[in-house]
Amino acid sequence: MRPIVTLLTDFGTADGYVAEVKGVILARLPEVELVDVTHEIIPQDVEAGRLALARYWRRFPPGTVHLAVVDPDVGSTRGALAVASDGRFLVGPDNGLLSPALLMAGARAVELTVPPHAAPTFHARDVFAPVAALLASGTAIDDLGPTASDPEIRRTREARRLEDGSLEGCVITVDRFGNAITNLIAPHGGVVEVGTLQLPVLRTYADAAAGTPLALASSNGLVEVAVRDGNAAQSLGLTRGARVVLRPARR
Amino acid sequence: MRPIVTLLTDFGTADGYVAEVKGVILARLPEVELVDVTHEIIPQDVEAGRLALARYWRRFPPGTVHLAVVDPDVGSTRGALAVASDGRFLVGPDNGLLSPALLMAGARAVELTVPPHAAPTFHARDVFAPVAALLASGTAIDDLGPTASDPEIRRTREARRLEDGSLEGCVITVDRFGNAITNLIAPHGGVVEVGTLQLPVLRTYADAAAGTPLALASSNGLVEVAVRDGNAAQSLGLTRGARVVLRPARR
Amino acid sequence: MRPIVTLLTDFGTADGYVAEVKGVILARLPEVELVDVTHEIIPQDVEAGRLALARYWRRFPPGTVHLAVVDPDVGSTRGALAVASDGRFLVGPDNGLLSPALLMAGARAVELTVPPHAAPTFHARDVFAPVAALLASGTAIDDLGPTASDPEIRRTREARRLEDGSLEGCVITVDRFGNAITNLIAPHGGVVEVGTLQLPVLRTYADAAAGTPLALASSNGLVEVAVRDGNAAQSLGLTRGARVVLRPARR
Repeated sequence: MRPIVTLLTDFGTADGYVAEVKGVILARLPEVELVDVTHEIIPQDVEAGRLALARYWRRFPPGTVHLAVVDPDVGSTRGALAVASDGRFLVGPDNGLLSPALLMAGARAVELTVPPHAAPTFHARDVFAPVAALLASGTAIDDLGPTASDPEIRRTREARRLEDGSLEGCVITVDRFGNAITNLIAPHGGVVEVGTLQLPVLRTYADAAAGTPLALASSNGLVEVAVRDGNAAQSLGLTRGARVVLRPARR
Repeated sequence: MRPIVTLLTDFGTADGYVAEVKGVILARLPEVELVDVTHEIIPQDVEAGRLALARYWRRFPPGTVHLAVVDPDVGSTRGALAVASDGRFLVGPDNGLLSPALLMAGARAVELTVPPHAAPTFHARDVFAPVAALLASGTAIDDLGPTASDPEIRRTREARRLEDGSLEGCVITVDRFGNAITNLIAPHGGVVEVGTLQLPVLRTYADAAAGTPLALASSNGLVEVAVRDGNAAQSLGLTRGARVVLRPARR
Repeated sequence: MRPIVTLLTDFGTADGYVAEVKGVILARLPEVELVDVTHEIIPQDVEAGRLALARYWRRFPPGTVHLAVVDPDVGSTRGALAVASDGRFLVGPDNGLLSPALLMAGARAVELTVPPHAAPTFHARDVFAPVAALLASGTAIDDLGPTASDPEIRRTREARRLEDGSLEGCVITVDRFGNAITNLIAPHGGVVEVGTLQLPVLRTYADAAAGTPLALASSNGLVEVAVRDGNAAQSLGLTRGARVVLRPARR
C-alpha cells in the first residue's frame, strides 16, 4: 500500500514553513501521499489541535502516519514523540497534543532524539518530518528511540452530576459554523440549559426554525449548541469553557 | 488511471471535519488521489459553491469524482445526489449546488439513500464520502440509487435588455482580489456602467493606471469590474446583486 | 519517479481559480502529484511570495516543478518564465518572484510564449499550468522557448555596517505567529536593538519568560524578533521595513 502522511499544524501556509516540511518528507520518500489535515489551528492552541486530532486519526487506514505539530515549547526540554496506536502512527511534540492516540489501549510511545543540527525553532522540519518519512517507509517504531516513560496527557474535562440529576458540562470547542461542542454525551431527548435558554435536544439543524437556537447530537456523539442558519457562538456569546447543563428527559 | 476525488466544502479545515471525510475515502480506496478544491466557501453559501464548481468541474480529467458539500439543510428531507455528467461524477446535497453538471446535456442523477447510522449533521462523512469512494473505484452510478426525479436547479440570474439596447445585469460574485464578476457576457469593446462610473472594457488589469477602475472580460468570459492594483468591491462598494449595465460599442 | 508539481499562488481557494489550475495539470498529466504550498499569499504581494519560495524550493526532490504565481501585471508585456535550477524546475511570471532560483549558479531560464487563446487575466491556468505539466512529464526546458535574456531579479535588501561596528537591518517579513524575520544573519550571541528595546539573542522561544520579547536565530539562519507565547509584530508594532540593529557580542 502507498504510504500516507497527514499533516496538522498551526503554521498557516503563507510563510513557506509547511512547504519546507512537505519537501523534507518528499525528498526522503518520493512515493508518499501527503494529506493536508489543517494548517489553520489557532497559533499555539494545543487543545484545539488535540480535539481536531481526536476526530480523524482513526478514520485513516492502518499504517497512516499522522504528523501533528502545535508546539509552543519547541526547542525547550519538552520531549518529542513517535506513537504507534491502533495500527496508525503519530509524530509530534510531547505536550498532550497526541493524547487521543496515547490513551488508546495498546499504545506505544518512544522518545525521539533531537539531532544536533536541528533548528531549535523548527522541529517539524528537522525532527518530526524525517521521522514521519521513516515510519511511512516501514521503519519499526522501536528503532526510533527508547520507550517514552511518562508522556504528557491532556483530557477533556469531565462533566459533573448535580444533585438534581442533571449534568453540568462546558463548551470544549467552537467550530467554523459557530456551533459550540460540549463535553456532554448526547442523550436521546432531554433539554440543554445555556445561560437562561432551555434548548430541546433535536435531531439536526433543520429541525429548528431559521435563526433559532437548538441543541443536538454532534457528529462525534457530544451535545452541540447551534443556531439554525446562524452562528451560535456569536449569538449566544459562547466560548470555550462556557457552562452548559443537560437535564435528561423525564421518564 | 488513478482515481481522483476532489473536495469542495464550507467546513474550513481547523475542526477536523474535512480530515474525517478524507480518512473515510482513503480507508475505502487507499490508492485514490485526493485534490483539495476549497474548504473556504462562506459557511452555508450554496450559491458561492455553485459558482466555484461551475469553473472547475469540467477541467479535470474524465472519471474524476467531485465531492461538493455546502449543506445548510443536512439531515432534513432534502435529497442526496450522485451525478454523472460529461464523463465526470459529482456527489453532494440536492440543493442546487451541483446545477452546473445537472444542466449539461446527457446528465444523469440518482437519489442516494441515507444509511440509518449516518449522523444527521454530517452527510459529507457518512453519505457522500463513501459514495465518492465507490464511484472512484468504478461502481456504476445506477447501482447507487434510483433516478432522481426532479433535482433542484439553481441558475445565474439572466441579464435584461433595456429599451436603449443596453444590457442590465448584476454582480454575481466577488473574488479574493475584490474583482466583481457579473452575469454579462463580455463583449468586444463597449462601456460598463457601475453606479455613476462609465468604465471602458479593457483587455487586462495592466491596461488601466494604478488605482483606476476598469471593466474587462473575466477568465470565464463574463464581464468583470476591477481596480488596477486595488480592490474594486471595497472601493466601489460592490456586493453580490449590485446593478451593472453594459452599453455595447457603437458601430 | 512520480512527477511532482507544487503550487504557490495568491488566489485563495474559494473562487475555484486554483481548482481550474489543478484540473488543467491533471488533465494533461493524470499521474502527477500536486502539492499545495499556499494560496494565501497576500494578493499581489510578489515580495511575500519570493520569500516563501526561497524557503522551500530546494527542499523538494530533484525533478520537482514549482508553479508560483503572484502576478499583478498578468496579461501585460511582463514576460513568462520557465527556470531550471539546481535540478528543480520553476514556472511563473517574470517579475522577480522566481529570483531565489534564478540567482543560483547554473540557473537556466527560458521565455515562454503566451498562446493566443490564453485569457489575459489568467496565465496561471492558460500558460503556466500547461508548461508545468510539460516539464513534469519530462519535456526539456529548451524546447519551451528561447533563453530569457534579462529576467527580473529581486533581492533582499542588504544590512549596512554602522561606524560602531553594529549592523543596521530591517524586518523583511512577519510570519503567522507575529515573528518578525530580519535581513540580519544570526550571530552567536549579541544584542538586537528594536526601537528602544535591547534584546539578547537567545536559542529558542522557550528561553524567554511568557510575554517577553526576545531575538533568536530563525530556522533559515536570519535574526528573528519574537515574543514568547505572544505576537511580536503586534506587541512591538513591527512591520516590513522596520529598523533593527544587531550589536555583536563583545569579545
